Amino acid sequence: MTTTATTTATGRAATAAARVMARADELGAISARPDALERTHLTPEHRRAADLVGAWMGEAGLAVHEDAAGNLCGRLEGARPGLPAVLLGSHVDTVPDAGRYDGMLGVLLAIEVARGVRPGELPFALEVVAFSDEEGTRFGSALSGSRALAGSWVEDWWGFTDSDGVTMADAFAAYGLDPSRVGEAAREPGSLVAYLEAHIEQGPFLEEADLPLAVVSSIAGARRFALTMTGRAGHAGGTPYERRRDALVGAAELVVEVERIGRSSGVVATVGRLQAFPGGVNVVPGVVELSLDLRAADDAARDAAWVRIEAAAERIAAARSLRFGATETYRADAVACAPWLRDAVRAGIDAAGAPEPLALWSRAGHDAMVVAGVAPVGMLFVRNGNGGVSHSPDEIVAEADVAVALDAFAATVAELAHRFESDDAARVASDEDRTPEDRT
Amino acid sequence: MTTTATTTATGRAATAAARVMARADELGAISARPDALERTHLTPEHRRAADLVGAWMGEAGLAVHEDAAGNLCGRLEGARPGLPAVLLGSHVDTVPDAGRYDGMLGVLLAIEVARGVRPGELPFALEVVAFSDEEGTRFGSALSGSRALAGSWVEDWWGFTDSDGVTMADAFAAYGLDPSRVGEAAREPGSLVAYLEAHIEQGPFLEEADLPLAVVSSIAGARRFALTMTGRAGHAGGTPYERRRDALVGAAELVVEVERIGRSSGVVATVGRLQAFPGGVNVVPGVVELSLDLRAADDAARDAAWVRIEAAAERIAAARSLRFGATETYRADAVACAPWLRDAVRAGIDAAGAPEPLALWSRAGHDAMVVAGVAPVGMLFVRNGNGGVSHSPDEIVAEADVAVALDAFAATVAELAHRFESDDAARVASDEDRTPEDRT
Repeated sequence: MTTTATTTATGRAATAAARVMARADELGAISARPDALERTHLTPEHRRAADLVGAWMGEAGLAVHEDAAGNLCGRLEGARPGLPAVLLGSHVDTVPDAGRYDGMLGVLLAIEVARGVRPGELPFALEVVAFSDEEGTRFGSALSGSRALAGSWVEDWWGFTDSDGVTMADAFAAYGLDPSRVGEAAREPGSLVAYLEAHIEQGPFLEEADLPLAVVSSIAGARRFALTMTGRAGHAGGTPYERRRDALVGAAELVVEVERIGRSSGVVATVGRLQAFPGGVNVVPGVVELSLDLRAADDAARDAAWVRIEAAAERIAAARSLRFGATETYRADAVACAPWLRDAVRAGIDAAGAPEPLALWSRAGHDAMVVAGVAPVGMLFVRNGNGGVSHSPDEIVAEADVAVALDAFAATVAELAHRFESDDAARVASDEDRTPEDRT
Repeated sequence: MTTTATTTATGRAATAAARVMARADELGAISARPDALERTHLTPEHRRAADLVGAWMGEAGLAVHEDAAGNLCGRLEGARPGLPAVLLGSHVDTVPDAGRYDGMLGVLLAIEVARGVRPGELPFALEVVAFSDEEGTRFGSALSGSRALAGSWVEDWWGFTDSDGVTMADAFAAYGLDPSRVGEAAREPGSLVAYLEAHIEQGPFLEEADLPLAVVSSIAGARRFALTMTGRAGHAGGTPYERRRDALVGAAELVVEVERIGRSSGVVATVGRLQAFPGGVNVVPGVVELSLDLRAADDAARDAAWVRIEAAAERIAAARSLRFGATETYRADAVACAPWLRDAVRAGIDAAGAPEPLALWSRAGHDAMVVAGVAPVGMLFVRNGNGGVSHSPDEIVAEADVAVALDAFAATVAELAHRFESDDAARVASDEDRTPEDRT
């Protein structure tokens, strides 16, 4: 629970950090529930939060507009109007019973960075975005805000309903948005130089290393599977071991093996769901259903782990005369942060006087993995002060860490400006660089 | 599915076996459901079955009466009226979707044995009982028929209800029985010389050994536990292995260990129920609930296995920072068949010309384990012709095996008669012999 500030931030950053902390509290109070923070897509709370964030953007000197997907955007022009933009941001929606920093911290830091920039000062425009729907809590439409911006909207979402049966299309209209115009939220290729997102770490690594900041190397590739072990149910009394085809003992061996393979291969492999059927106290289980969630820094490691797990499952099944089945239910390939943006973030952290940062891969998904479809992306993690707890009201960040993050984030933007001034702006934003070689 | 008759039964036994098979079919057709056999305690089907069995008893020369618990009893007096009785029988109630032989085979064989005995021929009375409620399907009151006879009725049962909310007390009245008189079903100590039960084997051992009959050495002692492993739920992405307290991996290790301990100690240990909570695909399980069913030929082996399982669970929990919990939900101590009745059954099998029988301990419970409270008990198993399948319409016995069983069962009664004539009848029925030394 203790956090240590290892750096003294600038005086300006200290003031701004205090403001970020107060604003996180203020934003965290806008909730559908009196006892907990829950603010989901296109709700009245979303509107109130957007209004407040819009006011803060305006106060920071940004021209504010809401895009066709409900993302709130603020823009500061660069050396001349209409230049490609560096986009900073994160999301303002939450999971149920959320913390105050997941998403919001990145938006508030972005506003503070913009506040420190004078109009026309930079060789690119600076934009701040507060994505409307990252968690997908209300409709199950995770990352829909950033997908609209990246031009990868999913048409099926329109028919998705919330727990009251309201479709996303109806919710758009109720919020004052026109579903038929959602395509207008998509940014033109070349209009964005880069996307930079700061986020609270959803893990304990910075706290354990006693460091305030990390450069993100990539965002995890994930695969999820629904698995089954099928044997033969039988009476516990009447079925001797030699005759059993016990699906549960086989599944249990697999669960142990999944952990062993995960640990030994640097892949995070989790069985979160498992149930034995028919489930009688005196009946040998005939079927077990279980889930598998795989996350890895790169897709090759993730896929190799799956090959090993599948082979182990088949081996276990064969030894016990069971039948193993697997259906893939979800797949997202890993997204690498652009090397030149990782360098810029690292340089920004260095310029802020912060200690050498950790390089981490994000085990959780972020808007950046979707924005990567239209712009190169970089990410900065800020130390989670409570053992890495996430999606929980117990999530905390230290004000001192926020101050250091702010200095580093501002310095990262300055570093990009320096690159732009010393390089050909058009080349930096070119397709070649938007698809770094380590992206796959 | 193939069965082999290894012995030629007597002509009389062959005729009787054909009758047993036909009667099992006839009895099996008396069901609450048109598509499956389900005949439970104190129902109209119970009445129809009791009427039919009573008619068969009468036809075999027995004086028939229904006792105060709905058990149907037939009596043939011995050398003089009022002698202690050798009781033969089993039960006529079923599980849902039952086979035709579980229970009924023992009743039908008993009737055939009695049919072959002339009144006054034996140095004891011969009684046949068709217990009313062994499975406990309707009220959850397993073994209530034999418990009434053994004087170990459970008062709480009166309030037990069926799926329609009918109490057992009301069902007694509707069947024409007076709950206040259930105590009258209890047999006086000394009134029973012995109880002998023939039953289809609820396991595959005879079929595997290619033998028609087994002498039962004891009826399994059982213990059941509700177990929990408690760790800490966490996000699959955000919680690295070093920080996990994954209740499921711990529970999985325990399931594997339970099987290992069971196999190595001759105890049948089964985890039939297991579920992980909260059960999210991307959440490390915080709690797992699982069941444990232990059965062993003797209580010491069963209890020793539990000590080993509990120690393994505590060791696994300690290694993973989990908390292990266990609540015992059921316990029945093992009942040994009386050595002199095991000898008599063996002698009867030998006299029938059947091959040397297997000695088996019963993994399932039987009326005999309750009757043991008021009389020494012996049991005979008849080969299950379908891989030991039990509590299923697929349960089968071969007519040839029934013929051999009948010869052996009749010869066992003759063997007892021989012992009585050559020994002091009072001593044979004494308390000393009713509590054989290997009973505990």
